[in-house]
Amino acid sequence: MKNPDTNVEFRAANFADLPAVIALLANDPLGSTREDMGPPVAEPYLMAFKAIEADANQLLAVAVTKRGEVVGTLQISFLPGISRMGSWRGQIEAVRVAETQRNTGLGQKMFEWAILRCRQKGCQLVQLTTDRSRPDAHRFYENLGFVDSHMGYKMPL
Amino acid sequence: MKNPDTNVEFRAANFADLPAVIALLANDPLGSTREDMGPPVAEPYLMAFKAIEADANQLLAVAVTKRGEVVGTLQISFLPGISRMGSWRGQIEAVRVAETQRNTGLGQKMFEWAILRCRQKGCQLVQLTTDRSRPDAHRFYENLGFVDSHMGYKMPL
Repeated sequence: MKNPDTNVEFRAANFADLPAVIALLANDPLGSTREDMGPPVAEPYLMAFKAIEADANQLLAVAVTKRGEVVGTLQISFLPGISRMGSWRGQIEAVRVAETQRNTGLGQKMFEWAILRCRQKGCQLVQLTTDRSRPDAHRFYENLGFVDSHMGYKMPL
Repeated sequence: MKNPDTNVEFRAANFADLPAVIALLANDPLGSTREDMGPPVAEPYLMAFKAIEADANQLLAVAVTKRGEVVGTLQISFLPGISRMGSWRGQIEAVRVAETQRNTGLGQKMFEWAILRCRQKGCQLVQLTTDRSRPDAHRFYENLGFVDSHMGYKMPL
């Protein structure tokens, strides 16, 4: 394991971070077939960014080095619900760490930050799904304390 | 299979439906250990209902017979995101059909309605997770066209 960059800051993404977030999502075996890195930033990404910004229960986050480089991203959706005694859930999606920062502990620090944000919002559960074809991710989540109790179904429309 | 009740209406839940929604969530092997049916309706449920109502991207739905009986419920979370070219996702959670209405086709009709709502919102994907201990649910979702491509991780806080 490399040394983690202790100067990485975690914060909500702003509009200027969007190209870097898209590049992180695209730099991935599954993401590379699904994203359009541009430039320019494709219109659907701009609309999605605006929708996330307009929704107080969405947090698109980035990990940024002191030099201003975006080296990680994830999105938290804070979900109110009736079940489990009216619990809020924090759902984490679209997680990426830059290739240069893998195996440095950055992913773990980013998750610790995200889980803290979920606690601060009053969530009683954190949940995520991960593609069956990502065994490294499974180990990572299990090491963090997540339990693989559910099956994740998807249907494209 | 029993005959479906063709007079069931699907609509957003209103405050008066809340006790019936909680009762449906509680009448379930997993839910029975997690919910408090009251009366009165426990305060956390009231707060959760208000949070759902205040969020334009949450839809708590009920299936209601002509006689006004709530016989089904589910929640749709409409999730904006950057990944997959800025796709919206419709996420379905907390699905229940009343015991009296099981094997009538009501669940399928409720899902067809929910998927239509996701299309109308512009979602390009519908997703859900289901506990591994619910084999009947797995068959139901697979028959609807959902693909079990992901693992669903949870962590209580």
